[in-house]
Amino acid sequence: MKPVVSIIMGSTSDLPVMEKAAKLLDEMQVPFEMNALSAHRTPAEVEKFAKEAAGRGIKVIIAAAGMAAALPGVIAANTTLPVIGVPVKGSVLDGVDALYSIIQMPPGIPVATVAINGAMNAAILAVQMLALSDTALAQKFADYKESLKNKIVKANEELKEVKFAYKTN
Amino acid sequence: MKPVVSIIMGSTSDLPVMEKAAKLLDEMQVPFEMNALSAHRTPAEVEKFAKEAAGRGIKVIIAAAGMAAALPGVIAANTTLPVIGVPVKGSVLDGVDALYSIIQMPPGIPVATVAINGAMNAAILAVQMLALSDTALAQKFADYKESLKNKIVKANEELKEVKFAYKTN
Amino acid sequence: MKPVVSIIMGSTSDLPVMEKAAKLLDEMQVPFEMNALSAHRTPAEVEKFAKEAAGRGIKVIIAAAGMAAALPGVIAANTTLPVIGVPVKGSVLDGVDALYSIIQMPPGIPVATVAINGAMNAAILAVQMLALSDTALAQKFADYKESLKNKIVKANEELKEVKFAYKTN
Amino acid sequence: MKPVVSIIMGSTSDLPVMEKAAKLLDEMQVPFEMNALSAHRTPAEVEKFAKEAAGRGIKVIIAAAGMAAALPGVIAANTTLPVIGVPVKGSVLDGVDALYSIIQMPPGIPVATVAINGAMNAAILAVQMLALSDTALAQKFADYKESLKNKIVKANEELKEVKFAYKTN
Amino acid sequence: MKPVVSIIMGSTSDLPVMEKAAKLLDEMQVPFEMNALSAHRTPAEVEKFAKEAAGRGIKVIIAAAGMAAALPGVIAANTTLPVIGVPVKGSVLDGVDALYSIIQMPPGIPVATVAINGAMNAAILAVQMLALSDTALAQKFADYKESLKNKIVKANEELKEVKFAYKTN
Amino acid sequence: MKPVVSIIMGSTSDLPVMEKAAKLLDEMQVPFEMNALSAHRTPAEVEKFAKEAAGRGIKVIIAAAGMAAALPGVIAANTTLPVIGVPVKGSVLDGVDALYSIIQMPPGIPVATVAINGAMNAAILAVQMLALSDTALAQKFADYKESLKNKIVKANEELKEVKFAYKTN
Amino acid sequence: MKPVVSIIMGSTSDLPVMEKAAKLLDEMQVPFEMNALSAHRTPAEVEKFAKEAAGRGIKVIIAAAGMAAALPGVIAANTTLPVIGVPVKGSVLDGVDALYSIIQMPPGIPVATVAINGAMNAAILAVQMLALSDTALAQKFADYKESLKNKIVKANEELKEVKFAYKTN
Amino acid sequence: MKPVVSIIMGSTSDLPVMEKAAKLLDEMQVPFEMNALSAHRTPAEVEKFAKEAAGRGIKVIIAAAGMAAALPGVIAANTTLPVIGVPVKGSVLDGVDALYSIIQMPPGIPVATVAINGAMNAAILAVQMLALSDTALAQKFADYKESLKNKIVKANEELKEVKFAYKTN
Repeated sequence: MKPVVSIIMGSTSDLPVMEKAAKLLDEMQVPFEMNALSAHRTPAEVEKFAKEAAGRGIKVIIAAAGMAAALPGVIAANTTLPVIGVPVKGSVLDGVDALYSIIQMPPGIPVATVAINGAMNAAILAVQMLALSDTALAQKFADYKESLKNKIVKANEELKEVKFAYKTN
Repeated sequence: MKPVVSIIMGSTSDLPVMEKAAKLLDEMQVPFEMNALSAHRTPAEVEKFAKEAAGRGIKVIIAAAGMAAALPGVIAANTTLPVIGVPVKGSVLDGVDALYSIIQMPPGIPVATVAINGAMNAAILAVQMLALSDTALAQKFADYKESLKNKIVKANEELKEVKFAYKTN
Repeated sequence: MKPVVSIIMGSTSDLPVMEKAAKLLDEMQVPFEMNALSAHRTPAEVEKFAKEAAGRGIKVIIAAAGMAAALPGVIAANTTLPVIGVPVKGSVLDGVDALYSIIQMPPGIPVATVAINGAMNAAILAVQMLALSDTALAQKFADYKESLKNKIVKANEELKEVKFAYKTN
Repeated sequence: MKPVVSIIMGSTSDLPVMEKAAKLLDEMQVPFEMNALSAHRTPAEVEKFAKEAAGRGIKVIIAAAGMAAALPGVIAANTTLPVIGVPVKGSVLDGVDALYSIIQMPPGIPVATVAINGAMNAAILAVQMLALSDTALAQKFADYKESLKNKIVKANEELKEVKFAYKTN
Repeated sequence: MKPVVSIIMGSTSDLPVMEKAAKLLDEMQVPFEMNALSAHRTPAEVEKFAKEAAGRGIKVIIAAAGMAAALPGVIAANTTLPVIGVPVKGSVLDGVDALYSIIQMPPGIPVATVAINGAMNAAILAVQMLALSDTALAQKFADYKESLKNKIVKANEELKEVKFAYKTN
Repeated sequence: MKPVVSIIMGSTSDLPVMEKAAKLLDEMQVPFEMNALSAHRTPAEVEKFAKEAAGRGIKVIIAAAGMAAALPGVIAANTTLPVIGVPVKGSVLDGVDALYSIIQMPPGIPVATVAINGAMNAAILAVQMLALSDTALAQKFADYKESLKNKIVKANEELKEVKFAYKTN
Repeated sequence: MKPVVSIIMGSTSDLPVMEKAAKLLDEMQVPFEMNALSAHRTPAEVEKFAKEAAGRGIKVIIAAAGMAAALPGVIAANTTLPVIGVPVKGSVLDGVDALYSIIQMPPGIPVATVAINGAMNAAILAVQMLALSDTALAQKFADYKESLKNKIVKANEELKEVKFAYKTN
Repeated sequence: MKPVVSIIMGSTSDLPVMEKAAKLLDEMQVPFEMNALSAHRTPAEVEKFAKEAAGRGIKVIIAAAGMAAALPGVIAANTTLPVIGVPVKGSVLDGVDALYSIIQMPPGIPVATVAINGAMNAAILAVQMLALSDTALAQKFADYKESLKNKIVKANEELKEVKFAYKTN
């Protein structure tokens, strides 16, 4: 089994956030790998990783980082693969520092950015990209998306339990 | 008893906030309903709800959502009824993301926005709108508003208990 | 002709913004008045205005102010009528100061807040409130809302003029 | 003993913050009073208070409020006395809403604003204003200010306890 | 020639920003279409567009909007295709309102967000996604990316023209 | 004529802002001086100024600065006189940097802060402080404050000129 | 052993943050001193310290402060030595107030600013400056920097422990 | 003449800002070089530059960038030399994106950050670092710093020209 998605995080302190991405890929049966690499501590490894990713069969890279989050952009600089960035709330600034560091890329080198700590959505985006040329995955994702509605059905059942004199449902 | 106010929330995680709206409507004896609907997970249900609300006798819609809070605006797009939006602090960004997503509506489609987590005030606004053509409710609300002053009287009694050598009251 | 909507602004420097509210009310044939009143310079006049508005037949108040925009809240404190607040970009802070000063009202005294400089939407909200008990106005507003779609039709015609080799429409 | 400083707060939830102002005035032996008044819930009482304050011998007013903090500005509108505003962190927005609502006053009606939750400094400002025409208080305040340096002396003694191999002091 | 990328914008006022996306797709010879659709003014058309896009052969959707920018999220809600969001600086708030409205999507419905006004990068992301299953496009994009370096070469030539006594290059 | 108010600014680029303070003091016939002093470029002069101000008869100091605006705080550190701070919009950050640098003073050393660029209000605060022990000035200020209402009268006359079919006044 | 780095903090409440600077200097065997000094409470001591530091053999000053953090700038004003500023999260504003107060220095008097609470990096910067003329220290620092990579190796081992069905490494 | 300071900018659009750094170094007679390099467009060149800088005799690197400004951090990752970062206002976000991207570096890899667009101060910091082991430069810088006071003298002369009836100087 060769991975097609690579999840990279700046440090293992990002793991509690990024496990949600892993879980979603697992659910969608998309082979993936997880590694820690730092644009600031191991720049050579980041460059090597990014340059070799396409050749190893990786199709999409998910990169997560906090604070001055250079990792997603530096990976994007060294590959032609689409890079999805996850800003991680990892400092005193609510993750806005990471958000700006990841999303405000210059013309030519985009990073597809998701919400702060939005790891699960990063995985979904990866699935959507892969599904463009993988009919089976496209069907699996369509089913998954359909299932999201059930949460609302369940939510409405919970709301029925809330009792007020003038509540009519 | 047919509801005239409809409280919609994006998820049941918004319930602790939105119960204050329910409680106020209950106190004012205004029949209401509560439902969970998501602009992003159940867009068809949101559209259906919004389009049918007026026909069912709903007069005012209170819509609460967090993060990229599209729900109030999308409901407003599909109804001529006034829509009151409640930005919910539901992410790492203190609710400012929800506030901007709800209040910054384009010309033509307003959402009457209240404070972040300001569910009780959303219900009061609904009461004020209904009271424009309901004299009994108008009187009930006038009494309620008068009663707010009593909190201050009670507050001043508490402050009397605070003792300082140079405090004169 | 007696006014049912009262537009109040903190200073005439807010007029270029607030004219859009007047224009929309005019289009909807809703009688209105316009006055300048300042919560900080003429507090007694503000109180008098707010207390007497309902008695004069006013149904909805639109209050606009910039900077430390106390006007909408102070009016709301002195009336049971619904008050719509328009934060005006009138300082060096992009109107965020006015937005916070208007929207962050304490429990009990709401102000229905619209976008920064969103005067037209304030007027639409007023129309929506009045339309709850005015079938003719409700129909007029429904027609108006329907007409908004035409802008998009026109926009798409403009976009057809944009020519690119690989543009297919 | 007649009060010369009046501490006003929007609600008793501000008391834990405002007690520091009371404590400082007590230490400086400045007679003061404390009351709760709300610009939004008891506007008439606020107006009455502000208009009568000077006549009762009050020299300086300290007004504290959170969220859409109109209280200090509305008091300033109704008195010629200097008003000191204390923005209170009372909502989800870290007190920035209160700060902007208090400090961004229009030309003509200033509020002397201190740091968010800066109640003690509000009291010191009041003392400084009173000391302009009260030599005994001026001396007391000069002594107080001198004593602030002792905290640093004590701090340096604490720092001596911190041991590192290459720390030289 | 059938379009594979669809560029949607909330209003033609976004065109000066979005033309950069069109230009890049043209340069990469990727067939695309451009339309104006509004989540708030033409919600039914948005839903219809989003639901039919995949069936018409569209692979990637680029959606641009300003202020309370619900458009990208609402499209994402109604399609399984990847949606790229472009926050447009269209209000008094520097585009931060649009950024938050687009990027802070709830779990399950991502929008791949680029920089404020970052239309060109949105198009590049679309190209990267399409290139995953289109070798010719992949090569074209690799060449394009290589060419970005030339700007720097040219920039350094410009810098040589800057003369200072102690400048050594 | 000896000055009782001292206006200090960090650089003459602040003069267009600070002239409004001078003008107000002139109108109130309060003798004042104006000087430029920099906490960062001329720290010794700032210290000397602050230490000697009270001895020279200065009663209130108005200090204006932009960016990392240390000037008001450093002056406050070196005098027992009340210091009024004016944050000046002097950088790319809309004056928020100056606002935070001036208002967020530690316990013990307050700066009475006014709105960004709020020089006129700083002068009014100074007048209010001086008026506490100067009956003539108190009367002059009461008259001035009364006159502020006339602007509103004039504003309402302007608004009468605005004609709409459904405008009733 | 004479200190070459001086760590100054505004109060001992900053010690938990600043100990990381001390620890790094200790690890690099750089003699240092630690003192508490306040720009607002002990301005004379700050000036004296800053003016005498170079003469005592200090080469680099690290100054930490929270809120209206004037300390680093005032020290920089009184010395020709490089000053490194550490904004400390010490108020309700997440340290942004301290960040702006330290970094937005006027032309002529820089403060080399590090991340909010970034004490360890302040010490590293000091080491880098000293290493410019100290070959032994330069080697020690190069070794330290090399060792940072090991954290990533260890992180990757941790990530291997995370098990998912479709995880390939 | 071999350069000891290297000024790197992400694009020549940063030149108007960075010329001030060049001018200051020229005035201090410090040999320097200027180059454009992009962390995102020419990552290999950035790495090569950073790794070789120390060997070529460079002592201090000044790196300027806007938006998601990864350049200073990536250079710092690849050298043991001190790196000074200049956030450039280059986007719609007032330079706060660049500020956060540069200053919020993780432990171990600092960037000495100056004010937004603070190029001249970056050069002064470089001079201060070099002056630690260059007595002649230290003297030149001390003279320069002394000269800054003259601006204030000149400023005060300008202020004397400002005439008011109650202005005493």
